[in-house]
Amino acid sequence: MSAVPKQIFHEAVTAKKASIQQFTGSEKIYVEGSSPDVRVPLRKVSQSDTPASFGAEKNPPVYVYDTSGPYTDPTVSIDLRLGLPSLREAWVESRGDTESLSGPSSAYGHERQHDPKSTDMRFEHIRKPRRAKAGANVTQMHYARKGIITPEMEFISIRENQKLATASELYNFQHPGESFGASIPKIITPEFVRDEVARGRAIIPNNINHPESEPMIIGRNFLVKINCNLGNSAVTSSIEEEVEKMLWSIRWGGDTVMDLSTGKNIHETREWIIRNSPVPIGTVPIYQALEKVNGKAEELTWEIFRDTLIEQAEQGVDYFTIHAGVRLAHIPLSAKRVTGIVSRGGSIMAKWCLAHHKESFLYTHFEDICEIMKAYDVAFSLGDGLRPGSIADANDEAQFAELRTLGELTKIAWKHDVQTMIEGPGHVPMHMIKANMDEQLKHCDEAPFYTLGPLTTDIAPGYDHITSAIGAAMIGWYGTAMLCYVTPKEHLGLPNKQDVRDGIIAYKIAAHAADLAKGHPGAQARDNALSKARFEFRWQDQFNLSLDPEKAVEFHDETLPQEGAKQAHFCSMCGPHFCSMRITQDVRDYAKSHHLSEEEALEKGMEEMSEEFLKAGAQVYQKL
Amino acid sequence: MSAVPKQIFHEAVTAKKASIQQFTGSEKIYVEGSSPDVRVPLRKVSQSDTPASFGAEKNPPVYVYDTSGPYTDPTVSIDLRLGLPSLREAWVESRGDTESLSGPSSAYGHERQHDPKSTDMRFEHIRKPRRAKAGANVTQMHYARKGIITPEMEFISIRENQKLATASELYNFQHPGESFGASIPKIITPEFVRDEVARGRAIIPNNINHPESEPMIIGRNFLVKINCNLGNSAVTSSIEEEVEKMLWSIRWGGDTVMDLSTGKNIHETREWIIRNSPVPIGTVPIYQALEKVNGKAEELTWEIFRDTLIEQAEQGVDYFTIHAGVRLAHIPLSAKRVTGIVSRGGSIMAKWCLAHHKESFLYTHFEDICEIMKAYDVAFSLGDGLRPGSIADANDEAQFAELRTLGELTKIAWKHDVQTMIEGPGHVPMHMIKANMDEQLKHCDEAPFYTLGPLTTDIAPGYDHITSAIGAAMIGWYGTAMLCYVTPKEHLGLPNKQDVRDGIIAYKIAAHAADLAKGHPGAQARDNALSKARFEFRWQDQFNLSLDPEKAVEFHDETLPQEGAKQAHFCSMCGPHFCSMRITQDVRDYAKSHHLSEEEALEKGMEEMSEEFLKAGAQVYQKL
Repeated sequence: MSAVPKQIFHEAVTAKKASIQQFTGSEKIYVEGSSPDVRVPLRKVSQSDTPASFGAEKNPPVYVYDTSGPYTDPTVSIDLRLGLPSLREAWVESRGDTESLSGPSSAYGHERQHDPKSTDMRFEHIRKPRRAKAGANVTQMHYARKGIITPEMEFISIRENQKLATASELYNFQHPGESFGASIPKIITPEFVRDEVARGRAIIPNNINHPESEPMIIGRNFLVKINCNLGNSAVTSSIEEEVEKMLWSIRWGGDTVMDLSTGKNIHETREWIIRNSPVPIGTVPIYQALEKVNGKAEELTWEIFRDTLIEQAEQGVDYFTIHAGVRLAHIPLSAKRVTGIVSRGGSIMAKWCLAHHKESFLYTHFEDICEIMKAYDVAFSLGDGLRPGSIADANDEAQFAELRTLGELTKIAWKHDVQTMIEGPGHVPMHMIKANMDEQLKHCDEAPFYTLGPLTTDIAPGYDHITSAIGAAMIGWYGTAMLCYVTPKEHLGLPNKQDVRDGIIAYKIAAHAADLAKGHPGAQARDNALSKARFEFRWQDQFNLSLDPEKAVEFHDETLPQEGAKQAHFCSMCGPHFCSMRITQDVRDYAKSHHLSEEEALEKGMEEMSEEFLKAGAQVYQKL
Repeated sequence: MSAVPKQIFHEAVTAKKASIQQFTGSEKIYVEGSSPDVRVPLRKVSQSDTPASFGAEKNPPVYVYDTSGPYTDPTVSIDLRLGLPSLREAWVESRGDTESLSGPSSAYGHERQHDPKSTDMRFEHIRKPRRAKAGANVTQMHYARKGIITPEMEFISIRENQKLATASELYNFQHPGESFGASIPKIITPEFVRDEVARGRAIIPNNINHPESEPMIIGRNFLVKINCNLGNSAVTSSIEEEVEKMLWSIRWGGDTVMDLSTGKNIHETREWIIRNSPVPIGTVPIYQALEKVNGKAEELTWEIFRDTLIEQAEQGVDYFTIHAGVRLAHIPLSAKRVTGIVSRGGSIMAKWCLAHHKESFLYTHFEDICEIMKAYDVAFSLGDGLRPGSIADANDEAQFAELRTLGELTKIAWKHDVQTMIEGPGHVPMHMIKANMDEQLKHCDEAPFYTLGPLTTDIAPGYDHITSAIGAAMIGWYGTAMLCYVTPKEHLGLPNKQDVRDGIIAYKIAAHAADLAKGHPGAQARDNALSKARFEFRWQDQFNLSLDPEKAVEFHDETLPQEGAKQAHFCSMCGPHFCSMRITQDVRDYAKSHHLSEEEALEKGMEEMSEEFLKAGAQVYQKL
């Protein structure tokens, strides 16, 4: 039997065969690309027919973006102890520019692999790491700039379009979104994906050592993405819990997951997460480096940090947050702030700089870091270590000085064809949000922006998923490519599963609201289908099409739990007499049964119509 | 003893002495105006001193707007069966333009007062209604246009300023908000209030028959307000529950309350609510009129509606939603919509118009309605019966045709000096929100806008407090004066207390975010104070200053329940090693203890500093 002991996975919780519960009315389908190994997952939400009283018609299925990976595919059997199938391995191999190493080339990776104390918790089937051959560059940006359309790019083009033709034909309605300079084509082609990556306007985070991941893209001419954070801290949680949090995140729609662990066994925890994650994994390597020096920031060195980068790159981390913009000269700019430096990474580097009175080693070694990134295709997420932590500190000189540095660093990264995105604030009042986006586009030459919120007020701890969803929706509309979620527990404690779900849904709302406002092709099809279902009292379809079908049912059933209420032409909010949708339909029914459109009835000015209407028994309310 | 039977108020729930639990760290204070009867309530939130490690200083109290009325005044004893003290009665009387009637002058009001079947539930101490003397106009707009500053206006000017001098001096930080044409003065004077009301740019909803209410103002050059809805429906809830919901709403910050009851005993329920409400009460009179004709829209008549207006005006309703913009010719414009007509009032009137093939009696009798409004100072809330109920229907011709009609009606109302605000959508994607505000300002000559959300996507039933808080914050920034809350149960069922709380807090966030963005004087003081408390680890102050102190404590204590954790320099989110605020303070402390600013340390370029820092034991993390 397996050597993995029970303390990692209680059989009761994550059985050998792991899966994620599919939403009601949904099933996983695949769209095949130009070759059979390009199989793009989508979630198909089926709809029931429109009832006869509303005109009896078929309602086409709605296809939605699916982040849940093979866990919702009933034909795939997943054992967490083996990890996911290697979707991309053949693509990576076939390019012939990488080599398989005999084992971890980082000192720490090597040490952990041979440390008997970690045997019990070690992932059993660790892959041999892969690395670019000497002199080779294996980034998607590098291929894109050479004009190569990779299978990853084709996969993404299919995934981004979704299969919406029928639904969009049905409604044929497209608001001309105000695009703030973004221009989203009607159809996302593989060539468009390649071009956006080549320009640096989008990134595909997919480390060659994370072949289990399904390709996805982050850029403002694509669907707005959301990131979820997980990770243990000094006191809390086991490896099992962290893997569970990852599964929970992708079930609700997390597009990437950052493992921000700072507690024990960071290395082993990460291995378990990556091997089982169908979405890209990001980390902040300085956190682990700090643990290696027992929490003493001033003892950090370039060598320890470099080894950490290689260690994590060889495990398969897809993007690294690197706070290389916190330069020595920027630190005094934060001295007068109300909340100083609120980024963990930023404060660690500030402390290091001040303790040594030296320029940050992340900045001085930036090209060395690029060399590592391009050997594995790890993308940069250039951290905003000086982001504002309060409304008072928004858009100040510390923040913008760092942003300009991030712009410089972007150009250096691009010189190496390393994919790069830029992290953004934080706490920003509404009227100052657009300036963030504009400055970022200007200084970072349109590299994708990845923001935390922003929170639009400081006064609602316990509800910061909402204070920040407001800012996130707005900045997403303005052009931010990925939104880092904030849970209701922000500022107060470590989120539990309910908090994670609340945070994700708030951010799915923000991202979708932004997609609508940008006029992303097809985004509105789901709104239209749900609203049509609502109008026709197809309650189950309304639930199935919603971002959180379980919550919608739960709320509906609180007041009307009877099964019959799901066919009823009202809910408990207004009751049958006051349901405006019902009344509207009564009016339409009347017109129809008299072979008239409402318009005709009025235009002809036939007064007798009204008499007939009354004679015909207009008291439709009383049917029930 | 009282004749009011137990079935209305269970002693256990609402004892004879009613009160609202004050938030921790808060107390009610009053600011006196030019005469002792102008006593303006504020909530004073006290703060503890900054601990020595952060520089030991006094932190001034923060004063916040208080909607909870005398219920949070420990010196006032309130018996719900007697109602609240009549704050404004003497002001109304002293103007000498009203007369006291011997009893209700509406047929229905008279009937209910003498119906033995309603004795058991009747409010015991019904006031004699008051009405303008023949030919008199008793609206605040009428006084304002005559140049009179009423006590109500003075009360409002003090209330809007809040007493923030100390806090704002302390931080002395004011973002120049992008004002979209609004211009908020640094100090709100009584004369400014008068002028805004005279121009029609703000309204003071306070019926002369609701003297219990504390004056408040709705206009875009004032704090953004929020409305909460309550009301029974055919199946649910008692009078007691409705009064409780009102108390619950004002505790969390509801500025006005709409009683949307459609069930039994609407008249009696309303009396209990108004007599005990310190905030203005709004209604949609057509709901009650429809009940009077047993739910048959086509049997509605102007006479029944008129009697209902008088009945409600004499009880003290402060504003009426009147859907007079749903004209016969507009109805066909809704025929092609995905969700038709979603306003209850709108659909009722559409049905009436179509059944009779006649112009709406609300439109044809609009001047008659004005005559009633000005005799009691009831304000118009011109209903948007054709607001969009889905993203697909946003900003369509039906909606804007109605808005233009509302603009015409505004001018007629103003001819009568009747205070008027305009209701707005609904479901609107972000990029189409500003057009709503702009069209409203243009067609309605800057009359205050009062919007429901708008919801920025249709796909999140169960979370529509969030989909709509996004739109509400934005439209509030653009100039909307009052936001009608949406609860998580919207579209699914009747909200319970938890839903009401969630809806209110989401809307307090939206309103405050808008106040910040508009640069409302003093709005940011609370953010600054909370953020300073957060930075200094004054946990209790952080909780006390938040919109929902109870939720903040609850969340914090979930992971760190020990009392000591409320003095700790970290929370469970990052733990002590990774708390960026702590690290920032360590850096500052070091500089300070060496009589250096961080800036100096850097400017002088003294490398030895770093050595000293290390020697002095920089491992501050390990103290804990």
